[in-house]
Amino acid sequence: MIQPLRWHTDRLDILDQRLLPTREVWLACVDEHDVADAITGMAIRGAPAIGVAAAFGVALAARAAAATDGRSEPAPAVRAAAAVLQRVEQAAELLGRTRPTAVNLFWALERVVLAVRAAAGDGGPAAVAAATAAATNLAAADIASCRRIGSAGRPLLARARAVYTHCNTGGLATAGYGTALGVIRAASEHNPNLHVYVGETRPYLQGARLTAWELQQEGISFSLCVDSAAGYLMARGKIDAVIVGADRVAANGDTANKIGTYGLAVLAQKHAIPFYVAAPLSTIDLKAADGGSIPIEERPAAEVTHFGAAVVAAPGAPVVNPSFDVTPAELITAIITDAGAVRAPWDVALHRLKASAEEGAQHA
Amino acid sequence: MIQPLRWHTDRLDILDQRLLPTREVWLACVDEHDVADAITGMAIRGAPAIGVAAAFGVALAARAAAATDGRSEPAPAVRAAAAVLQRVEQAAELLGRTRPTAVNLFWALERVVLAVRAAAGDGGPAAVAAATAAATNLAAADIASCRRIGSAGRPLLARARAVYTHCNTGGLATAGYGTALGVIRAASEHNPNLHVYVGETRPYLQGARLTAWELQQEGISFSLCVDSAAGYLMARGKIDAVIVGADRVAANGDTANKIGTYGLAVLAQKHAIPFYVAAPLSTIDLKAADGGSIPIEERPAAEVTHFGAAVVAAPGAPVVNPSFDVTPAELITAIITDAGAVRAPWDVALHRLKASAEEGAQHA
Repeated sequence: MIQPLRWHTDRLDILDQRLLPTREVWLACVDEHDVADAITGMAIRGAPAIGVAAAFGVALAARAAAATDGRSEPAPAVRAAAAVLQRVEQAAELLGRTRPTAVNLFWALERVVLAVRAAAGDGGPAAVAAATAAATNLAAADIASCRRIGSAGRPLLARARAVYTHCNTGGLATAGYGTALGVIRAASEHNPNLHVYVGETRPYLQGARLTAWELQQEGISFSLCVDSAAGYLMARGKIDAVIVGADRVAANGDTANKIGTYGLAVLAQKHAIPFYVAAPLSTIDLKAADGGSIPIEERPAAEVTHFGAAVVAAPGAPVVNPSFDVTPAELITAIITDAGAVRAPWDVALHRLKASAEEGAQHA
Repeated sequence: MIQPLRWHTDRLDILDQRLLPTREVWLACVDEHDVADAITGMAIRGAPAIGVAAAFGVALAARAAAATDGRSEPAPAVRAAAAVLQRVEQAAELLGRTRPTAVNLFWALERVVLAVRAAAGDGGPAAVAAATAAATNLAAADIASCRRIGSAGRPLLARARAVYTHCNTGGLATAGYGTALGVIRAASEHNPNLHVYVGETRPYLQGARLTAWELQQEGISFSLCVDSAAGYLMARGKIDAVIVGADRVAANGDTANKIGTYGLAVLAQKHAIPFYVAAPLSTIDLKAADGGSIPIEERPAAEVTHFGAAVVAAPGAPVVNPSFDVTPAELITAIITDAGAVRAPWDVALHRLKASAEEGAQHA
């Protein structure tokens, strides 16, 4: 299974996705600053993956705090725990500033901070252990969640001849397996002739570089195209469904995802093609009433004007580079989560999903 | 004025647009084969520009035929004319095979062949002179036609704050001045605060490399964006109009243009934004009943998988790379031609335009 993170107790290795598919380089992160840089610089991306990476970043911060405190003087356990908690909270704040749109990041950070707080009474080592356990559990839970999304979405693509997907929502975008690409993986087990059209996903080319690479490794049939060819393919009857991931789903079902998702949804509606969003429950943010309350990140101009060292635009050209857009809920056919696929009315469906998940967690 | 072609009697210099904006290199073309290679390889592109370039290619063929014939033996004038006509017809066939979608190419080739046929009775030198005159006239007429398109379209953008355009439809895509970008040029003289959003236009990046460069030189305010950001900008109320060029307009108004145009038209309709097509009358093909009869060129995979020497996709990824799409007439607000802007009902409007243009040509 393709996995973008490797945890080694004292460091987190992150696969540098900026260099894929031509080079496979792992970045060794020893503290929260290394992890924050990897997220900001997009060495790792994808809403679930940055949540898990950030959780490990907090775990590294907890370790570092305990080690520092231990070296300076033999502190009583209660002081060590306070130092760990302080560093953990600072690390969560730092990591929360890396990217604003995906809500999984904030959700994952909160989980680790709560675990450390709960364990702090038992001393520094317990707090460190709690941080590590929380991050490790989040990673394992993310893979399990992806597999449930795959199972929930599989029937929706059972009879599709071809599906269009955007960006990368695969193993690389999660702790492993993927969300929308996980559904494609699961569907193609039973529907082996399923063809995948992959939009290259400018400016960062996650489709061309990452999704195409994952599909090659899986032996799933696909064609790469420029993003603006989606309408042409739909008009010619080539596409039976569109499936994408999500960075944040608001309480009313409005969905923030990679720039271009909205245009795909409008085209899918025009051609009466089902439009599916696949995401774990942690992507649903009931605190955001609708898409208007989701912050949209603007990324640097150089992503558009350069490819590596190559200049691909008139030098000095002013750029507008929004990294995400919002697809209104009325354009979405179904949202496929780890607790099942749901449809409109969205507010009822999404509140019910989240409530049953919280209940499940309390009983666990 | 930015012009991509320079005629020197014995050769045609073509500005190599593949290297813009970083390098300005002129390709010296001495016969029809050089010109055909420049068109196929996209050193020159844009429907009106390839029409004019091909016309000069035929003129070079006529010269070459006369020169060859003259060198081998002193042929009587009537034999020389036949040799010129034969080579001219072969050259037109060769040049007609370069790119299938833009109809201006076939229209321009036909003009030159007809001129040579008409002059052939007066001998070889007259046939050569007729070819050269026809090509030179086509170039001058194209610039004049662009200026009339600009005047016809200017009122439509008189109150727009911002317009979105796709691909390059400027001086570089014509003999000079431009079609859709000509309208923007003309409009910004009277509406100097007009802002232009430029889609980068993957895979060949005509927007990022060529349109941005032309707008910089004109001092017109613009922002470059990835193609898939158009929906985001429209949803935020940033766009008051969309204007594009055309490679072929069918009798019913269906319009073939650069891949992605159709998606822009669907988004414009969704947001009740006017969608304008700007093109000379030579782009209107009454022989094509509707968009379904316009051939759509598929370009090489490497345009998508590589940028220059840089690999931008998983190696060996299969690609679908249609270079154009068809926008159904019902999504078009107005077609702006050198004989004025017209609206639906399209069949009536387009037939009337072409008929009055032919009448005008007969009286001239």
